[in-house]
Formats: sequence, C-alpha cells, structure tokens
Amino acid sequence: MSGTNSEKERIEEGPVIVLVEPQLGENIGMVARAMANFGLAELRLVNPRDGWPNEKARSAASKADHVIDGVQVFETLEAAIADLNFVYATTARERYGFKPVRSPVTACTTLRQKFNGGERTGILFGRERWGLSNEEVALADEIVTFPVNPAFASLNIAQAVLLMSYEWMKSGMDDLSKTLFQPVEQRPATKDELFGLFDHVEEALEARGYFHPAAKKPKMVDNLRAVLSRRAFTSQEIGVIRGVVASLDRFARRYPHGQRPAEESEGQGDLQGHDQ
Amino acid sequence: MSGTNSEKERIEEGPVIVLVEPQLGENIGMVARAMANFGLAELRLVNPRDGWPNEKARSAASKADHVIDGVQVFETLEAAIADLNFVYATTARERYGFKPVRSPVTACTTLRQKFNGGERTGILFGRERWGLSNEEVALADEIVTFPVNPAFASLNIAQAVLLMSYEWMKSGMDDLSKTLFQPVEQRPATKDELFGLFDHVEEALEARGYFHPAAKKPKMVDNLRAVLSRRAFTSQEIGVIRGVVASLDRFARRYPHGQRPAEESEGQGDLQGHDQ
Repeated sequence: MSGTNSEKERIEEGPVIVLVEPQLGENIGMVARAMANFGLAELRLVNPRDGWPNEKARSAASKADHVIDGVQVFETLEAAIADLNFVYATTARERYGFKPVRSPVTACTTLRQKFNGGERTGILFGRERWGLSNEEVALADEIVTFPVNPAFASLNIAQAVLLMSYEWMKSGMDDLSKTLFQPVEQRPATKDELFGLFDHVEEALEARGYFHPAAKKPKMVDNLRAVLSRRAFTSQEIGVIRGVVASLDRFARRYPHGQRPAEESEGQGDLQGHDQ
Repeated sequence: MSGTNSEKERIEEGPVIVLVEPQLGENIGMVARAMANFGLAELRLVNPRDGWPNEKARSAASKADHVIDGVQVFETLEAAIADLNFVYATTARERYGFKPVRSPVTACTTLRQKFNGGERTGILFGRERWGLSNEEVALADEIVTFPVNPAFASLNIAQAVLLMSYEWMKSGMDDLSKTLFQPVEQRPATKDELFGLFDHVEEALEARGYFHPAAKKPKMVDNLRAVLSRRAFTSQEIGVIRGVVASLDRFARRYPHGQRPAEESEGQGDLQGHDQ
C-alpha cells in the first residue's frame, strides 16, 4: 500500500477505481492514463497477478505518474472497498439477482450526486479474462453495464474504465456541448458588410460583362445575392471572400501579385475603394 | 482496397472511421474492436505505415473480423473521404481557424441527424504521435474534441474511436438510461405484504419477550415498522426477509434445518401460517 495524495485531495477527485486481480501491467497503466484523461486519480488493486509496483504499468500510464504513485494494493475486495459508501460493479454479462442495473449515464449521475453529498464511491472492474465473480458483484450496491452491440459486448478493462471516467467527467458538466477550446472568435457580419460584398462582387462582374444580356441583370443580381447571403457569414468570412474577389479582380494569371506594378494591374482603378 | 459488405449495408451502419497514417497494427485492430463494440463497421486507412493486410491488426481486433475484412486503404485523405457528405476531424489541440468545435455529444447528435437524412458521414483520426495536420483538419466540416482533463488531454486513437463509437451508439437510443439486461423482474410489494411482514416479525419477537417493558411496546412497534418500511421493498424482497425471519425463528443454532424433526423445532407451532 502506498499513497502520496492526502485523503482530502483524493476525496475531491471522484470515485475510486478498483481493479480486481488484474493480470497485465500494461492494462493497469492504460487504466491509470484513462483515469488521468478524465480527472480521476485514486486507483486500487486487489491481488494484481504480477505484484506491485509494476514497471510495465508505469510505462503504459504515459506520464499519469500521480495515479501510479497513489495506487493502493489490497488482498481482498472487501478490504479494498471497506471505507466506501456506495459501489458499482461493471459487468457485460447478465447477472441473476435483485441488484439494479444502470447505464453509464445513470450510474455517473448517481455517483456525482453521492460525491456532491460527501459520500465515498467506487467502481469495480473485473479480471481481463472473465470479469467479476457473482460473489464480487454481490458486494456492490448496483450494477453498471455498457450499451454495446450484443454481438461484441466485451470491453477490455482499460476501455471500460475510460468510458466510466469519461461519463464521470461529463456528469460534472453543466453543458454537454461545452468544449475545451473554441474556434477563432467571430462576430456575425452586419448587413452593411454583406452589402459591401454585394457591391464588390457585382462591380467586378459588371466590369467584365457578366450581366449579359442587360435585361437579365436584375434576375442575375437577385440570384447572386441569394447565393452570397444564404449562409450567415461572419465578419471575418466576408473579409476572406472579399480578399479572394479582390485578388481575382486585380491580378491577371500572367502577372500575379508583386510581379507587375499595381497601377498597371487589371481593374485596379475601379476597385481601390473596396480593397481590404 | 477490399470490402465484403455491400454499399447498402455499410450505409446503414453509421459514420465511416478514417485513420490517417496509423502506425501500429495493434492500434488498428483495437480501433476495429471498439467499432464493433458499438455497432460501427466501416474502417478506412490512409497510408498505413506497415501496409495492409496486417496480421497484428486482425489479432488485436479480437474477432471483429467483419471490420478488418471490410477495411479500405487509400493513398490520400482526399480519396478516402471523396464519397462522404459530412466529416468531423478529431483533435486534442486547439486549431486556429473558423471551423466549429463540437463536443462528442453534439457531434454524434449531428452525425445521427445526417445519417437519418441519408447523408454519408465520417470521422477522421490522426497519427499516434501527432494527430492530424492543419491541412487535414481543413478538409473536415467541423472539429470534435473530448472533454478531457487539460493536463492529460491526449487519448490514443483506439480510445478516441471508442468514445466516438460509444457516443454514436448512444445517439441512437431513445432512453439513455436503457440497459441491455435488467435485474430479475420485481414488483413493488403491496401494503398487505408489508403488513404480513410486520405481523411475522412482531409475533416472533413477542414470543421471545422482545417488547419489554410492556409500556414501551407501542413505541417499539412504531420504530420497528418504521425501519421495515423505510425502503419500498419489492414483493420478492419481502419473501426473502420473511424466509430469514422464519429461519431464525424456527431453527435453533444447535438444531439447524433438517437435523431435527420440524414439529420439535422452536416456535414452529406459532408460525405455520407465515411460512413462505
């Protein structure tokens, strides 16, 4: 048994992850990493086959050293969960019993409520080969199972821990559409900016005889404006589009930008007012 | 390029998973398995480092052979997504650009809507070491990123595919609390069953002088009934509890069930009517 975090720090993290008789150090490490990805930190092992510490576990944890350093090892599952108030058992197989069976979303909502109420919680994960025994499941309060394709129902333990950790993280979010980063801040274009784009494009096309025959011009302008306004462009996007039009308008293929004095380039005289 | 599923079967499965220059066959296999777990089947590879087919991939796919058999290999990302209508790029890093950034929940809601509308969709995943280039991200319609702990933001590709496949599966569920199996069917106990439990327990205790002194009996009965009715027991649970009481009541430690004629066992005469 070892631990570097104080009890208080642990309690603030969320549910304890308990692996029962894990066999491969790589899996323990991947579990630690998955926990770190989603803000969990307290990992307990019941009788790991290859003992503890395990260098393969540390390596597979890919720098989630705080989880590996804090691992606690127990001889029995009872001892591993003795200080907890509420425990889920994960299983892919149907169990015959009275215990409630929950989806990960429901389970993590419950875990979050209990966490907010100051309870200590845990999630049990079984052996690589055959999961948890019925006796081990019986020690849990409720069962959690994943909404998998029944033909391919078994997840490896690192994947199962990943999904529960991910749902745990989400259960603490006010808004599930929230993301860690956002696109470049953009403000919707004003109508004035949109009208500037209309003028710019129409003027450049007019200069080239695009609106032909003249009788069709009003309809052609309508169509063009419909295309340019179908999407609500942002101010920045209008800037980009006007840059494109200006470039096409001002520079000939034979004389790209910088290779001919600007005053000689095609259409320049007409467009100075529009140059962005 | 190879494929065994018909185009129609593929379309019905959901988004195409596209791995750009994956390096390790094991990762490709774990991706295939994660897809199978959550009902996806169409996997495309852009320039896999070790070529294709790859026996390590098949082995790591743990029997998700239909995904491995259906893998298509392309030389460029453009070719890999040419037939798709809408594509997400996954990334853990902030990108500077105009593209909308979505959470997995939002992205899978969008993918499900487009799928239901008959569009062909895909999700791009980058290389193990450094993900997708900005040029590759630029080919996608929108970005999806995971709600991870910023200090441990990178997921391996199999984990990233697992989470997106899981959210895809959930996006098709009417009820996120639904589970593949349920506990033994139980119906809430009727009040009559609960009153039967009260009578059973109180009679067995009365016979042992539990309600002492007599003046306290009403309060003791109140407390006992409060304990027995605090949880809404199911009918089956009341059966189990009455079995426990009956066993404690009828059989002495020295003469357990089967080791002494029933007619001689303690309290038997009083309890025949209650025996479940």
